[in-house]
Amino acid sequence: MSLWFYEYQTPDLELCTRVRRTLAAEHTGFQELLLLDTQEFGRALVLDGAVQTTVRDEYIYHEMLAHVPLFTHPRPRQVLVVGGGDGGTVREALKHPGVEQVRLVEIDRRVVEVAREHLPEISCGLDDPRVEIIYGNGVDYLQEHPDQFDVILVDSPDPVGPARALFTPDFYGLVRRSLREDGLFAAQTESPFFNQDLIPGVYRSIAALFPVARLYLAFVPTYPGGIWSFTLGSREHDPLSVLMDQAPVATRYYTAALHRAAFVLPRYVEELLEQEGEDPDAS
Amino acid sequence: MSLWFYEYQTPDLELCTRVRRTLAAEHTGFQELLLLDTQEFGRALVLDGAVQTTVRDEYIYHEMLAHVPLFTHPRPRQVLVVGGGDGGTVREALKHPGVEQVRLVEIDRRVVEVAREHLPEISCGLDDPRVEIIYGNGVDYLQEHPDQFDVILVDSPDPVGPARALFTPDFYGLVRRSLREDGLFAAQTESPFFNQDLIPGVYRSIAALFPVARLYLAFVPTYPGGIWSFTLGSREHDPLSVLMDQAPVATRYYTAALHRAAFVLPRYVEELLEQEGEDPDAS
Repeated sequence: MSLWFYEYQTPDLELCTRVRRTLAAEHTGFQELLLLDTQEFGRALVLDGAVQTTVRDEYIYHEMLAHVPLFTHPRPRQVLVVGGGDGGTVREALKHPGVEQVRLVEIDRRVVEVAREHLPEISCGLDDPRVEIIYGNGVDYLQEHPDQFDVILVDSPDPVGPARALFTPDFYGLVRRSLREDGLFAAQTESPFFNQDLIPGVYRSIAALFPVARLYLAFVPTYPGGIWSFTLGSREHDPLSVLMDQAPVATRYYTAALHRAAFVLPRYVEELLEQEGEDPDAS
Repeated sequence: MSLWFYEYQTPDLELCTRVRRTLAAEHTGFQELLLLDTQEFGRALVLDGAVQTTVRDEYIYHEMLAHVPLFTHPRPRQVLVVGGGDGGTVREALKHPGVEQVRLVEIDRRVVEVAREHLPEISCGLDDPRVEIIYGNGVDYLQEHPDQFDVILVDSPDPVGPARALFTPDFYGLVRRSLREDGLFAAQTESPFFNQDLIPGVYRSIAALFPVARLYLAFVPTYPGGIWSFTLGSREHDPLSVLMDQAPVATRYYTAALHRAAFVLPRYVEELLEQEGEDPDAS
């Protein structure tokens, strides 16, 4: 017998992984949640049909979302993670000894509970005394917490349904307001190969609000096209001004040299950022 | 009705693309050949079940295989392409005005014929007067042509069956012998995420034969994991010593800045190169 999980990465492209066992399958009230034990990638969290994270390659996304902004800020103390209830981004943020508090705002309590039960390698940081978990809407939370954070990490799902609000100029404006004077943020911003309608508008929105706006890339095998983008918006500090010979943190993907090289873009991605882009508020 | 092509990228992972039309399906005498018109990637050449190239993303692989070594050599005049009968690597090599001749050694005449018929965007360089096509075995050709080439580009299929010979120390030794005194070569060397058994041995073999051995990466959406490696071996010139503000060539992926950044590796890939590696002659 052979069980396979098929993810529609686009309407015409599927990534299909052999499944050893289904560990959870439920509707959480917010979304369809699957926790699969796959042959190729180990345990995988799937939300509304899209692979969010797998034990085999999760470190790539989480390290790159967390360490690039956290090493760009000279003294990150207060960190907010929006989304990311699996805990991987929190785990990486906690590796920075100067970080005093990591607040995680996750709308779906079941994501945290399932990650705690089935993904201990990823969720292991959630019990750290520096972590506070808030179950709620990230937009509401930002509205209530201006001028608080050194670094905000937006670990959102794809811009489908309610999560679309996390890719709008209004949201980036709220993020800016919640940052301290020299604060900065990074957000996952999808695949430059498959999401070419999204990226120009997102980049333009962030560049309109922040004096420093830069897109960077990582190879994430389980995400569509294997090429994934993050966009960093900063009120003061520039990631390209960071001088490090070695990153003082244990990683499997991120390095001090990659901190700079990840911002060197293929020509077709550079061209995306030069486009006018559609107005993300328009749709 | 819905037609899909399923590629086993590993025994437990498939990439599945919706097919509009099958344009060719035959056994060439050397291999099973499919030419599919896919919804997501346009026309795609498939050999023995593995996607070789698609119209939508072929430029990434071909530009990175050709331009990194060709811009590393200060005066490339004589170029040899081993494999690559679709013509994409030849097309890129011809963009260098100093190149006087590009010889293509392809074992399977049908690959060239099918590419000429169905992939004109890729095969368009094959009729250039500077191109000579030799139908034959790349190993034999190298044995008969010592000390001839400034740059050799190894555009091989996966190391399965006879193509395994193109990933051995013996083959790299032949490549070295066919290069001129200051010649250099690059070869496609598979996915660092999925082919971790292969890369350490290949890298060690090349580093044992060439004073300069360097691995570089590109994001190729249709290849396993989206992360693809190339290894460059050079008798004299170092790709990291190349100084260019702009690459004088029309590209969609390669840039002068990426020429250097592509050599900055994720930590787990650096670690692969530090491994002892299995002896590729042993199996």
